[in-house]
Amino acid sequence: MTDLTTALQTCLDGRWAAIRDETRTELDAERFAPPGQWLSLEDYRARIADQVQGLAETGHPARGFPVESGGNGDLGGSVTAFEMLGHADLSLMVKAGVHWGLFGGAVANLGTERHHAAYLPSIIDASLPGCFAMTETGHGSDVQSLGTTATYDPATDELVVNTPDVRSRKDYIGGAARDGRLAAVFAQLVTNGESHGVHCVLVPIRDEDGNPMPGVTIGDCGQKAGLAGVDNGRLTFDQVRVPRTNLLNRYGDIDEHGTYTSPIENQTRRFFTMLGTLVRGRISVAGGAGAATRTALTLAITYAGHRRQFAPPGAPDEVLLLDYRTHQRKLLPALAKSYALQLAQNELVELMHEVQLAGDKAEEHQQRLLEARAAGIKAVATAHATATIQTCREACGGAGYLSVNRLPALKADTDVFTTFEGDNTVLLQLVAKGLLTDYRDSFGDLDTLGMVRFGAKQFAGVVIERTAARGLVQRLIDSAPGRDSEKGPLDRGWQLELFEDRERHLLETVAMRLRKAGKPGADLFEVFNDAQDHVVEAARAHVDRVVLESFVAGIEACADPSAAQLLERVCDLYALSSIEQDRGWFLEHGRITPARSKQVTASVNELCATLRPQAQVLVDAFGIPHAWLGTELLEEPA
Amino acid sequence: MTDLTTALQTCLDGRWAAIRDETRTELDAERFAPPGQWLSLEDYRARIADQVQGLAETGHPARGFPVESGGNGDLGGSVTAFEMLGHADLSLMVKAGVHWGLFGGAVANLGTERHHAAYLPSIIDASLPGCFAMTETGHGSDVQSLGTTATYDPATDELVVNTPDVRSRKDYIGGAARDGRLAAVFAQLVTNGESHGVHCVLVPIRDEDGNPMPGVTIGDCGQKAGLAGVDNGRLTFDQVRVPRTNLLNRYGDIDEHGTYTSPIENQTRRFFTMLGTLVRGRISVAGGAGAATRTALTLAITYAGHRRQFAPPGAPDEVLLLDYRTHQRKLLPALAKSYALQLAQNELVELMHEVQLAGDKAEEHQQRLLEARAAGIKAVATAHATATIQTCREACGGAGYLSVNRLPALKADTDVFTTFEGDNTVLLQLVAKGLLTDYRDSFGDLDTLGMVRFGAKQFAGVVIERTAARGLVQRLIDSAPGRDSEKGPLDRGWQLELFEDRERHLLETVAMRLRKAGKPGADLFEVFNDAQDHVVEAARAHVDRVVLESFVAGIEACADPSAAQLLERVCDLYALSSIEQDRGWFLEHGRITPARSKQVTASVNELCATLRPQAQVLVDAFGIPHAWLGTELLEEPA
Repeated sequence: MTDLTTALQTCLDGRWAAIRDETRTELDAERFAPPGQWLSLEDYRARIADQVQGLAETGHPARGFPVESGGNGDLGGSVTAFEMLGHADLSLMVKAGVHWGLFGGAVANLGTERHHAAYLPSIIDASLPGCFAMTETGHGSDVQSLGTTATYDPATDELVVNTPDVRSRKDYIGGAARDGRLAAVFAQLVTNGESHGVHCVLVPIRDEDGNPMPGVTIGDCGQKAGLAGVDNGRLTFDQVRVPRTNLLNRYGDIDEHGTYTSPIENQTRRFFTMLGTLVRGRISVAGGAGAATRTALTLAITYAGHRRQFAPPGAPDEVLLLDYRTHQRKLLPALAKSYALQLAQNELVELMHEVQLAGDKAEEHQQRLLEARAAGIKAVATAHATATIQTCREACGGAGYLSVNRLPALKADTDVFTTFEGDNTVLLQLVAKGLLTDYRDSFGDLDTLGMVRFGAKQFAGVVIERTAARGLVQRLIDSAPGRDSEKGPLDRGWQLELFEDRERHLLETVAMRLRKAGKPGADLFEVFNDAQDHVVEAARAHVDRVVLESFVAGIEACADPSAAQLLERVCDLYALSSIEQDRGWFLEHGRITPARSKQVTASVNELCATLRPQAQVLVDAFGIPHAWLGTELLEEPA
Repeated sequence: MTDLTTALQTCLDGRWAAIRDETRTELDAERFAPPGQWLSLEDYRARIADQVQGLAETGHPARGFPVESGGNGDLGGSVTAFEMLGHADLSLMVKAGVHWGLFGGAVANLGTERHHAAYLPSIIDASLPGCFAMTETGHGSDVQSLGTTATYDPATDELVVNTPDVRSRKDYIGGAARDGRLAAVFAQLVTNGESHGVHCVLVPIRDEDGNPMPGVTIGDCGQKAGLAGVDNGRLTFDQVRVPRTNLLNRYGDIDEHGTYTSPIENQTRRFFTMLGTLVRGRISVAGGAGAATRTALTLAITYAGHRRQFAPPGAPDEVLLLDYRTHQRKLLPALAKSYALQLAQNELVELMHEVQLAGDKAEEHQQRLLEARAAGIKAVATAHATATIQTCREACGGAGYLSVNRLPALKADTDVFTTFEGDNTVLLQLVAKGLLTDYRDSFGDLDTLGMVRFGAKQFAGVVIERTAARGLVQRLIDSAPGRDSEKGPLDRGWQLELFEDRERHLLETVAMRLRKAGKPGADLFEVFNDAQDHVVEAARAHVDRVVLESFVAGIEACADPSAAQLLERVCDLYALSSIEQDRGWFLEHGRITPARSKQVTASVNELCATLRPQAQVLVDAFGIPHAWLGTELLEEPA
């Protein structure tokens, strides 16, 4: 590696660089690599189940659990190690994420000492494979409306878990079809005929021999677009009885008389507090999406650096694909955005680490900020993954279509990331809601109409809250001299102000539209629905701004001057290609002139040409182990 | 079916409606349906090979071949029947397309009577499975630079076919890995030490027992992103000898003394004439992409019409997905574009039918027009397929990720359409080149630099040539009264003029830029490369305009007033969502005001709401047999 590559890698690796290096050098890359040959569904599942055991042996998965349960309590490190798995087999990443992250996370965060003592050791060493049974056939995004019930029966001191209809069947549940033995089942908790909303109950679904438990019907989702190594299945419960103490009771408990108690009075608020503790799943998906995208970019850019096609008249050699402007435009702005998102992800993981370590002492404002940031980055990072991996596939032509070259699996495996752990369109609405409402005193419900009510009642002016490099961002915005028109498109202050201004305008205007809902007789759904695209746009503008600020902060933290200088150009390409993509809005709203808009396009072209000689260094700095990249795309045919 | 559905279907079915109906009712839909369960690569290939035999028995494949060889000579009908296969298993469509379309097409169009008599009957009945061996590992887009050679040896009166290096290995060849027995091999023809450019030679690659012929090394491309039923492979020839008469000699022949003759003097012109006869492949891919897209839209729109999520406050029922604006915006503009593209495809197939039936008597101008149109529609239709099927998958959430619901296969199978039969980016440059140069007197070579030379020397003002409903389009443009600003966005004349004006402007400005190449000392590659994104944009604007005119012509041809009225709204949605997507350009170039731009967005929203109640009728009118749609997405869970 050149010094520049090392310096860039240091900058991208962030606070948990040591853990990244550990996974690069100490993990047996061959063992966790994607299968070199095609496998049947059953063989693939068996392979991944075995890899999960292998991963348990490395000790990495313990990192995310509390010290008192045999873990390391290093939450940020845990999520970072998980992200690195995104360069390996994505089936392994998701299977591991379901077992340790979602299932283990539910036991750790929603359970109490008795659950930690009873289960965490065998969760950490993977001897008790688990499932996270939240989604139902009829309810994915709207978790509050789940149909599964858990009813307390005082006669036997048991909870009776039941699936009333097909819509309430647990669906797409990772681990359910083959390996899972214990499921964290989300259900409406009912005591004495009264419902207390969604809670989580541990329900054994298979015995030690792998047979379904009495009353549990297990279905198999079968082949999927990707993630063949993950055994997604369906669970139906027919009056399945478990001890009362199987309720994960950190936020709501039942005593032996069937009396329900909770530290949180308000049901909706309780529900969101519970969900909030599970935010790590969303952050991990964003991280994994980023890793997979970087793998794809490394393959496509390396290929474009040696693949030639068409000779110019009179020239002896054909032209390298990466020398064509259309090819640069396909790959380099996407590369710049991957840099931006990795720096934003690093910041998000740090925020999560601090907030979650503080536990109940964390400021509620910080917890809300974390949830909104996680939702926004997840939505943008997974959409970027889908689009970019698709582009990389196409940029490699027929070679990109062959499974041996990994791009097909990268595309198919990550495809579901845009809709699981929160559908992206729903998540962006959640982000906007967070920006429009004041969470200190009250919680809206997850349905997006809450936004109308809160928008109408409580909105009192948009505050753009900077979180990264606050001072620096302000100085950059203030520093550029003269009028806007005198600042060139490469002026960072101009870019930052443009992003901030768009966010503020979109939020203010959407809030004004939603206020109409306060008028008597207004159809709340209609008001909300009319503004829905506007709401989503506002959220996207917010995430864009946050990501740009993370980039600025990341450059500021870069100690190496040459690396920092290169990162400045990458940041320009990220900012200007984002502006170019949304130039319709900026022009429509008089934020840029037509001349400036053309200037932005010209700058994007120039930046592509400027960065082209550094493209290989920029992907090498991702630091992806070669065993996870070994495809025909990397080598020129003789 | 309602009367409206029938009327719409009639309009979409076009000239070969009878053939569409025949495939709907007479083909054994079960037999040609995608496999209901997951299959191994070998089982899938065997299944498709068997389906190909079944298809041969239906007699459909004979349609595209000359009457004198046992065919029907119904070229348009043949391509239409092939398009209908795009609703069935896409592996079957591609495998059939390779055998009958590409391989059979090469023999029919590049061969002469001796080849027709010897091979066409056993090609038509599929007893002689064939390959179309054009692409090489190192040469996909740049076919003129293929490395494989076919050298005449007068001593034995044979052609010696040879692969000089790995880059010249035939790659991604459908049928090569398992079934193909005879390959149409594209190679540089050499006689007496002189090269005559690329020609096509028939080379047996397997004997009757399926063993590779001496000197032929066959590789397997293995698993791909999709199209598992197509056995793509690699062919390497080590001095393989075939009789001289195996040369497909319509455009170039060798006598027994090794003397080369051709009816076309110029080598480049000859090459393009040969390629031009193979245009049907590209048209068929566009058709198949359209069918697959319509299948995906039918699934996603039907699902969104019964799937509910989130209840408005106080309302008893949850809201249907298709009632959400963001969901309408995902699916309905894509639906409108699918309507537009189907009407454009119908027109393209008619043009092909007329031009190809005329054979050597066809006007060269018409042939060039056909090639440019085929390249443009193929690029736009396949990009639309990739984007829309992706959106449909996401719009169905977790259910859309399950293979049983077909969307994963539709996505993966069609993914390669954007880069095979011509990479889309290369094809769009070809379209632009066709518009900028005058083909009557000279041919450029396929490398895009030819464009610079021709642009510089010959360009003499852009002529927008209308092909569909010329008179009507002119009347619509002329009829809207008053200034532009007084015409509403729903004014068809305003829309047409906007599309036409954008195309003209982009072409004129790109031509001016390319003229710089005429200056002495200019670096031709640099001039071309600097304008490359501009060139592609110009081509896309051209195709958009042609497609909109096809839509206008299609409505004009619709006999049913209710259907026509509905189509007018669908056409509005197509036109306005296209304008909205490119509003950055229109604003930058002063073609629309910011106020008009916002009005366009508002109109798109209103049109989505207006068309929402008709969404099911609009997809039902695609007339896709239920056996090819039977997934869980269509039925509401009890």
